[in-house]
Amino acid sequence: MSIPKQVMLKEVGPRDGLQNESSIISTEKKIAWIDKLVEAGLKYIEVSSFVSPKWIPALADADDVFRYLKREDDVTYAALVPNEKGLERALRADVDEIGIFISASEAHNRRNVNKSIDETLSVLKEVVSTAKQEGKTARGYVSAVFGCPFEGHVSIGQVERVSHALLDMGIDELSLGDTIGVANPLQVKQVVRQLKTTIPTGKLALHLHNTRGLAQANIMAGLEENIQVFDGATGGLGGCPYAKGATGNVATEDVQYLMESLGIETGVSLKGLINAAKYIEPYVGNELPSYQLKLSQEEGDGA
Amino acid sequence: MSIPKQVMLKEVGPRDGLQNESSIISTEKKIAWIDKLVEAGLKYIEVSSFVSPKWIPALADADDVFRYLKREDDVTYAALVPNEKGLERALRADVDEIGIFISASEAHNRRNVNKSIDETLSVLKEVVSTAKQEGKTARGYVSAVFGCPFEGHVSIGQVERVSHALLDMGIDELSLGDTIGVANPLQVKQVVRQLKTTIPTGKLALHLHNTRGLAQANIMAGLEENIQVFDGATGGLGGCPYAKGATGNVATEDVQYLMESLGIETGVSLKGLINAAKYIEPYVGNELPSYQLKLSQEEGDGA
Repeated sequence: MSIPKQVMLKEVGPRDGLQNESSIISTEKKIAWIDKLVEAGLKYIEVSSFVSPKWIPALADADDVFRYLKREDDVTYAALVPNEKGLERALRADVDEIGIFISASEAHNRRNVNKSIDETLSVLKEVVSTAKQEGKTARGYVSAVFGCPFEGHVSIGQVERVSHALLDMGIDELSLGDTIGVANPLQVKQVVRQLKTTIPTGKLALHLHNTRGLAQANIMAGLEENIQVFDGATGGLGGCPYAKGATGNVATEDVQYLMESLGIETGVSLKGLINAAKYIEPYVGNELPSYQLKLSQEEGDGA
Repeated sequence: MSIPKQVMLKEVGPRDGLQNESSIISTEKKIAWIDKLVEAGLKYIEVSSFVSPKWIPALADADDVFRYLKREDDVTYAALVPNEKGLERALRADVDEIGIFISASEAHNRRNVNKSIDETLSVLKEVVSTAKQEGKTARGYVSAVFGCPFEGHVSIGQVERVSHALLDMGIDELSLGDTIGVANPLQVKQVVRQLKTTIPTGKLALHLHNTRGLAQANIMAGLEENIQVFDGATGGLGGCPYAKGATGNVATEDVQYLMESLGIETGVSLKGLINAAKYIEPYVGNELPSYQLKLSQEEGDGA
């Protein structure tokens, strides 16, 4: 069994993390946090989402975050875009990369965007085409890859169908999402192996939630299948805001710790990530589930 | 890669869990909890420890727990025994199996029992010999197998030496402990593979702590090496009592969830384990880190 020597961690906390927290954090604090994430060595930050502020008030300041952000040349500042209207805002904000999203589950997709998968694909095709004409790269988030809150089982065939539809539009990378945290390591290997029969491994990323404590085991399974891009959110941000203890995205610093313990290079500093998590935790208003954050607090590590 | 179809979960919560919590729980409540663990289908419970009550006040009632426990024929009620004096109490209590412990790290062993590894082996040899004469089986806990809080790195050779010394005494099973939760999945595979060159896999168990959130990834690594016995503590009991959020043993119900998601039989009911965790949590006095326990509380699953 061989695993990669180097992987890339992509930070989705400012978008996927905050989107699922109840607190509204000021633009200034978001920017200070993003600066700390970049200081930690992260080269990819999903900064915000250009969805309607009515849907996600916590990210209503996406335009301002991009306006006032000081950008580093070697960092990709990305944003989620649901449709043409969102894309217009994203282009005005001069994002480096757009992220689009669709669910592998028909029921979940409908609940999410009130459209069928095929209707959503039509919308996204236009969005990606325009973005590409404007010289942007595009990342595709496929949700509910490992299970759906409404349908339960999601077939690999359905994941393949959606993935290929996105790749055909020109999507540069697919982020395979375990949206509700039900994946297990055997399933991760099975899904990734199947996708690898028709998709280059370098186009696949894993986006795992730690709801049942299996995110790290699933990341290990991804590494064993040679996946080299993993999403995370500082602190493990993104638990459902009304559910006590529900964990959201796997904590970026916990993934970094795993990578360090396995001898895998990421170019990221664990201490820097913990600093960023420490910075944002008080503004989120609830204890974050990150193991490394808790350990650093216990050790009184005044980072 | 193949994994076992069936594994055995051994519950160490009443001993290793409570030993590291600050609360003192009444004998009556301990017994009620153990009954719930047995109802859940567990066939192995480490009930208590016959160490000096001065060392571990939380387990001072070991004799009484055994005295008043109603025993099921097909369940092994075990207890930890540090020395001949502890063994006398354990024999009087008619334990089904004794557990003895030693560290793979010289410094950790000295800190734990104020003896060198060789001195400890001499003591244990007598203990195991007497226990065997009395018809008892014996389990050997090897601590700090994957890292030591004082020495850091622990060599596999040292783990092998201690393991073989225990097996030579007649120990029936070795429980390999990641006492401080620093193991990673590659290391687990490496250590287990090396031990398997001279020890039958059926004599090896994994005892993992979830301090850095990697216990489940490490269990998966163990499964891939055909390990078929895993220790856990209901609720994830056993975090350091004075450190906020420090997680202790991996939660038995979280391991059960992993096994179910992998299609591995354990004979144990997840719901039953969650019930047992719900019962004990209020008496422990702090929120337990189990994912399944939290999920059941969110879902308002009135089990």
